[in-house]
Parts: sequence; C-alpha cells; structure tokens
Amino acid sequence: MNFFYSKDINDKSILLNSIETNHCIKVLRHKIGDQVNVVDGFGNTYLSKIINFNNEICQLEILKKYTSKRKINIHLFISPTKNHKRLEWMMEKIVEIGVDRVTFIVCERSVRNRINLKRLNKIALSAMKQTQNSFLPIIDDCIYFSDIFKIVSSEDLFIAHLNKKNNKLLKSSLNSIISRCILIGPEGDFTDEEVCQALNNNFVEVSLGQTRLRTETSGIVSTTILNM
Amino acid sequence: MNFFYSKDINDKSILLNSIETNHCIKVLRHKIGDQVNVVDGFGNTYLSKIINFNNEICQLEILKKYTSKRKINIHLFISPTKNHKRLEWMMEKIVEIGVDRVTFIVCERSVRNRINLKRLNKIALSAMKQTQNSFLPIIDDCIYFSDIFKIVSSEDLFIAHLNKKNNKLLKSSLNSIISRCILIGPEGDFTDEEVCQALNNNFVEVSLGQTRLRTETSGIVSTTILNM
Repeated sequence: MNFFYSKDINDKSILLNSIETNHCIKVLRHKIGDQVNVVDGFGNTYLSKIINFNNEICQLEILKKYTSKRKINIHLFISPTKNHKRLEWMMEKIVEIGVDRVTFIVCERSVRNRINLKRLNKIALSAMKQTQNSFLPIIDDCIYFSDIFKIVSSEDLFIAHLNKKNNKLLKSSLNSIISRCILIGPEGDFTDEEVCQALNNNFVEVSLGQTRLRTETSGIVSTTILNM
Repeated sequence: MNFFYSKDINDKSILLNSIETNHCIKVLRHKIGDQVNVVDGFGNTYLSKIINFNNEICQLEILKKYTSKRKINIHLFISPTKNHKRLEWMMEKIVEIGVDRVTFIVCERSVRNRINLKRLNKIALSAMKQTQNSFLPIIDDCIYFSDIFKIVSSEDLFIAHLNKKNNKLLKSSLNSIISRCILIGPEGDFTDEEVCQALNNNFVEVSLGQTRLRTETSGIVSTTILNM
C-alpha cells in the first residue's frame, strides 16, 4: 500500500498538500474510496480513505491509527561535505536507518558552510515514504561549532575523531538508552581546540573502527551504531 | 602522502601499471626520489621511493613494509539493485568500512542479473586508496542463489529477511570471531523457498533492525555490524 505524508491531520480527517495530492491522484491514480496510508513524520501512520479531492488538495477520513516509537533518540551533528551529492546520499541512508535530528556544523576545517536545506528535507521525506518508515528527522541548517553546546540535549555525548589513537570504540561507549548524539567532523577532522572544547562540555572521544571513513560514511556508520 | 596500488611487487621493488603511473607522474607530478605509499590490496603498505619511470610504467624501491590484518573475514552476498549507481555507492562505502569478498546473487525476485564488474572493481580500488585502507575485496560476478552454498566458507552464516517477524537481531547473533557472511536479498526480499534453502544449509535468519532498508543500505548496515 502507498504511503503519503501530511502535516495537516486532526482527529478524524487528513488533508494532503498539492505535492502529495498530485502524487496520490495524478501519478498513482487513486480514486475516491481507495485506502492509503498517511504518515505524520512523528511515528504515526493513519490508514485512511480518500473522500474528496481536487487539483490542489485531497481529503481523507481516518480509519485507523498506528503509533510506533523510536527506541533511542539520536542527534547527528555533522560537517557538510564539499560535494553536496554525498550529503544527500547520506541523508537518504540515515533516514532509512533511523535518526531524530541532524544538525550541520561549520568547523574550522569545513570546506562548505551552506547546505540546500529544502533539497535535504525533500530527500528525507522521500526516503521515509519509500521505506515505509514513519519518522522524519528535524534537519537544522548550518551552525558554528561553538553553538553545538547551546542546543545539545542528549544524555550520551560523543565526538568521533582521529587526532588521537586508541580512542574507545563508539559501540563500547554507549551508555544511555534514552538519547545519544555524536559530532562528525570535516574531511580534515576536528582541530585539537575543537576536540578540547567538546571534552570540556562533557563529550566523550570515540573511534568508529579500524578504518578511516569519509565524512558521509561516518554519518551512516555512527547512526547505525547509535541505534544499537 | 599519496597512495598507489600495485599487483607487481617483489621483495625489493614495485612496478606501477600505466593507470597508476599516469596518476603518480602526470597528475600528482611526482619525481624520481619522491617517497610514496603503495598498497597491494592484501593489507600490506610499502613506503617506497620512485627510482625510474616512463609513460607506461613506474619503478619504485621498497623502503619499508607495514602489514595490517583485518580482524574478521567478511563475505557479503547481495542481490544487485535495479539502479547500478546504488550498487556503486554501496561498494565505495563497504570498502571504506571493510569487507573481504562481495558476491552478487541472482534471486527469484532480483530485477537485475548483470553487473558492471570492471566499474565496481575500479570504485573499490579508488575507495581503498582514498581512505588509505590497504584491503581490496574480491568482487565476484553474479551467481545463482543455489550456487551460494557451493562457495560459502564462513563460520557464521546469516540470511537477513523480512518474511518473518521477530528474527533475532544480527548484532545479537554474532558468534565467530574468524569469519562471517550474510545474504541480502532483492527489494522484493527472498522467497520462502530461498529462506528455507538457506536454513537447510545452516544459515541463521536475522533482522537488521526496526526499519525497512533498501538493498544497498542493508549491505552497508550489515557490513558495519559484521565488523563489530
């Protein structure tokens, strides 16, 4: 069954916006009376029946509501890669794997300080629908490294870097079963000062394994491990 | 320092082929006497000095040899995705993360039964050099599902599928510290008969987590977990 997304959901009915209406009615040729699933991005899936539509909007009646809960809240802070395409690919993968919030960080060695937030949100939405997942992450625009500590609220706080050998593995450092966050730096890694600043704010240094990973791969690997 | 790849290594000297020579001499403008690293794809890295070159070949003298060993041998069997680009992206990521052998499998519901082996090998090589990793996986062309059992040699044998709920998580099923393999099916998943055939050959059914993943994402996530 097809999945659609709506922010306009009340107790009994749902409205799809023009993009979702187009997809539902024009592309997939659904008709009045057809049943489809609608997700809200917060873990709720609504089995619904199409009761009316025009070119701009589609109205549905809620038949049943299913709620799922993510086990652990995961917040990924990551420096944008030079090539935006790599970020987009990463976004698709981490939405499939499961992430609650992604914040892009501008570090001293970051080579990019702007992202295409609209495009990343679109990719996240599409990945959520494609994999019949009902969680859409909050995606924040770029913030400066020093501002991380103003918004971070997770219990487990990690910074992955290669400046020091023998950092403990991330998988062996997991503590909280409530909320976890990790900082992933740019290709040239965090500076010693940035690592120091994180440590002063109670972050724990970790390694993602034996091998050197590209930034976007670190994002995918750390999201996988944080979900464990 | 730059990394190059060679299959032509003896006790004291190394020859780079025309592609690597071009990269070393024409692109990166190395000269006689320069020191570079050469990897053999089997875990050996050679600090070497350029002693001679022409347009086709570059000769190096070995100064020092470093050997690294992968902890666990990992063999990924995976059905090709419809879109070859997704396979290429996955190959880059799993080489970064670490994998010893990749075999493409044609299952009943596979929508593709051919891959571009030359291109995948090129991507694997490039990912290895890029991340200064010294292991290059063996990449096998497509084989039929039923032929898996003739070539598999790992101690831990897993099949990931969604046909049954409540399969044990892969991370909780790891046993061997020597060698592990996993079968990842096509978008439409394995058939019940295929799962049954795997179980009859001592494979263990596993789940990769709460969410439904695309094939190539399953390849990345399972490679991450098998390396743990």
